[in-house]
Amino acid sequence: MQVWNDYLSQNKQRFLDELLDLLRIPSISADSKYKSDVARCAEAVKENLLKAGCDHAEICATEGHPIVYGEKNIDPSAPTVLVYGHYDVQPADPLELWNSGPFEPVVKDGKIYARGACDDKGQMFMHVKALEVMNATGTLACNVKFMIEGEEEVGSSNLGKFLEGNRDKLKADIVLVSDTSMISMEHPSIETGLRGLAYMEVEVTGPNRDLHSGVYGGAVANPINVLCKMIASLHDENHHITIPGFYDKVQQLTESERKALNSAPFDVNEYKSELGVDELLGEKDYTPLEHTGVRPTLDVNGIWGGYIGEGAKTVLPSKAFAKISMRLVPNQDSHEISEMFAKHFESIAPKSVKVKVTPHHGGEPVVTPTDSAAYKAASEAIKTAFGKDPIPTRGGGSIPIIALFEKVLGLKTVLMGFGLDNDNIHSPNEKFDVANFYKGIETLPYFHKYFREMSK
Amino acid sequence: MQVWNDYLSQNKQRFLDELLDLLRIPSISADSKYKSDVARCAEAVKENLLKAGCDHAEICATEGHPIVYGEKNIDPSAPTVLVYGHYDVQPADPLELWNSGPFEPVVKDGKIYARGACDDKGQMFMHVKALEVMNATGTLACNVKFMIEGEEEVGSSNLGKFLEGNRDKLKADIVLVSDTSMISMEHPSIETGLRGLAYMEVEVTGPNRDLHSGVYGGAVANPINVLCKMIASLHDENHHITIPGFYDKVQQLTESERKALNSAPFDVNEYKSELGVDELLGEKDYTPLEHTGVRPTLDVNGIWGGYIGEGAKTVLPSKAFAKISMRLVPNQDSHEISEMFAKHFESIAPKSVKVKVTPHHGGEPVVTPTDSAAYKAASEAIKTAFGKDPIPTRGGGSIPIIALFEKVLGLKTVLMGFGLDNDNIHSPNEKFDVANFYKGIETLPYFHKYFREMSK
Repeated sequence: MQVWNDYLSQNKQRFLDELLDLLRIPSISADSKYKSDVARCAEAVKENLLKAGCDHAEICATEGHPIVYGEKNIDPSAPTVLVYGHYDVQPADPLELWNSGPFEPVVKDGKIYARGACDDKGQMFMHVKALEVMNATGTLACNVKFMIEGEEEVGSSNLGKFLEGNRDKLKADIVLVSDTSMISMEHPSIETGLRGLAYMEVEVTGPNRDLHSGVYGGAVANPINVLCKMIASLHDENHHITIPGFYDKVQQLTESERKALNSAPFDVNEYKSELGVDELLGEKDYTPLEHTGVRPTLDVNGIWGGYIGEGAKTVLPSKAFAKISMRLVPNQDSHEISEMFAKHFESIAPKSVKVKVTPHHGGEPVVTPTDSAAYKAASEAIKTAFGKDPIPTRGGGSIPIIALFEKVLGLKTVLMGFGLDNDNIHSPNEKFDVANFYKGIETLPYFHKYFREMSK
Repeated sequence: MQVWNDYLSQNKQRFLDELLDLLRIPSISADSKYKSDVARCAEAVKENLLKAGCDHAEICATEGHPIVYGEKNIDPSAPTVLVYGHYDVQPADPLELWNSGPFEPVVKDGKIYARGACDDKGQMFMHVKALEVMNATGTLACNVKFMIEGEEEVGSSNLGKFLEGNRDKLKADIVLVSDTSMISMEHPSIETGLRGLAYMEVEVTGPNRDLHSGVYGGAVANPINVLCKMIASLHDENHHITIPGFYDKVQQLTESERKALNSAPFDVNEYKSELGVDELLGEKDYTPLEHTGVRPTLDVNGIWGGYIGEGAKTVLPSKAFAKISMRLVPNQDSHEISEMFAKHFESIAPKSVKVKVTPHHGGEPVVTPTDSAAYKAASEAIKTAFGKDPIPTRGGGSIPIIALFEKVLGLKTVLMGFGLDNDNIHSPNEKFDVANFYKGIETLPYFHKYFREMSK
């Protein structure tokens, strides 16, 4: 609508500047030394919600980092959109690989570089600014509620309790989330599913102290070598995961579903060259789009043990550690898989070591319906703003909380992501294209408009 | 001799205090930020040599850390003993596992706790104090030279050049080294062989940047998983090393040699319980004494990659690293083995990653003769001081420079170690029993006495 476009173009620079201010706050939820920054960021989100037109906004304390809630009610008979997002970010290390400070945002070649630029401050902020656009132009079609949390990157462990304790407050007709990506600006898409997650930490202990590798080496189990052997055994030669029962509940796609999934634009050579690899490595008999969309995985996210400083130290260490996570697909259950992993990992340990397995957070896989009014409104909004129909895709990432929205609040979710796969989320030099940021602010008001029309 | 015992008992506390002063200097050769401490330690060693009776002592600069040289000449017709030792120490980490500061020596329950207490400051210092005992009592039987280096823990890379440039200065009849251990005070022993060492660092690179493990996981090779698989494949199910050609030159012991080696006192249950392990893990068909004495090994000394901080990060990292060392036995060659390792490691890398292999230092295995005057003098000295014949054993550790003594100087070596296997060398809470320190000072003068008598 012209009125929206006019307002947006008059306020473009301010919208960007406000986002950059938010990106300057190092709201790393995983690291307790950033606790006060996380709190400061919650405060900033609240202020932004009020400024954008919310009647009410508040900081809701939890046992962990706070949740920011805000609302703008226009008409009890209008549908209500509950926007979910998060203001916390991933740790920024390895810092030496960043071209500019992760919390000193830089706009270069049309891209905003900063930790959280895309995941999720930039995408969450599109909704705040879309509210401002609609509010300032008197065109709000739906009631809007915001629930912006500070623990998404550490498993949203306090959000479930918040949902349960605030069922009335959170009453809505749909949850709208921008925390995923689209294929490209030329190929807009909507993710219709997300993988779940089971994240484990393992500790392997050999001798009761670090030993001299000359005096003891050869006779005593080295926990690093043992850990490597155990990790290696978790995949077979076809890159299938070997944990007994792991695939039992995995939903197999029909031939036509596979065909539809693989019809999304994907250039394997471009993909490889963009990643700088000569070959991909994935489960046999599946395509890369299937590997990342509908098949479960097991990846070591971190490993450490022994001497990792400069030079050489001939130590046979006492302990070795790894962080191992599995992406899950419908209908795997993260608790079941965590238990399976722990049981299996303990069972494959040789008697020469002791093994401790600790689960971190988990989350369930989700599939969102494509026949709902909300999905159709999202599809139509993208068609209006981009000039073409969006492609339905399956996302590889996880937003553990989506499954809970349905379970606790009885609400379906629509994933309108405006990020790109090459946004380096969770990596050094995370970025968000300025054009995508503005395109999101342009598209979202159409969702509200069409959702009200289609909900009638 | 009574005169030695008298002098020793009159000066016991001072000898110990002087050693503690030396232990207070953090002479960590591997870490460049301790360079000035290493230099300060060299200076302290020089002062101690002069104080003990050397006519001359000097600091010899090298391209790395300096070598301390000292000499006391009594009679051109007497044999000359060249004492080799080192004043540098291993890094002290993990610091949190020390019960007291690694460079704040503590004497507790008859043990000196400090980094370097045994390896090798404490053992090297026995020779300095033995010189003082002989010199002060007018009983020196041999000329004595000292060559105390500062790079043993980082591969002695500048000592070879020093040997070559100082052949005349270093002229001697035997090299005497205390940098190994004995079985126990009840079972004194002399090591008659040492393993060699090849130390490698490997880097495995997958994608050109850290990736989100959800967006890419399953399709792209994870360098940690790949590194684990590569490391796991380096041993087969019998714990044999799988590098082609690795065992080709390994000297097999005869049945009678194996029998002799295994006749040394060894209690497997005590060994396991002291290490806190339920089972040992070693090459099939060999005993623990063989595993650590006469069989080569491959141990990961350090591994790291991905996110290793607090909490969880769902990263598919770009790189993973490991430090891997092999202990070698006669007649393996460290350069050949390093090349074999590099070639093999590169060959087993899947095309989905890139591998870089960098050798650190190496050293050759050695066997010392047991029929020489020097060995007999050492054996007799121990018999006199301990009241029983020493048991010849094979040591698992490496002193890479021993092979060079023979090659460059044409000198054999005798290894008179007074440490114990449980001294935690290279580990937190390194210690040296006060009794062993004094017993060494008591024993060494007998070596000089007998060596002169037997050399006639």
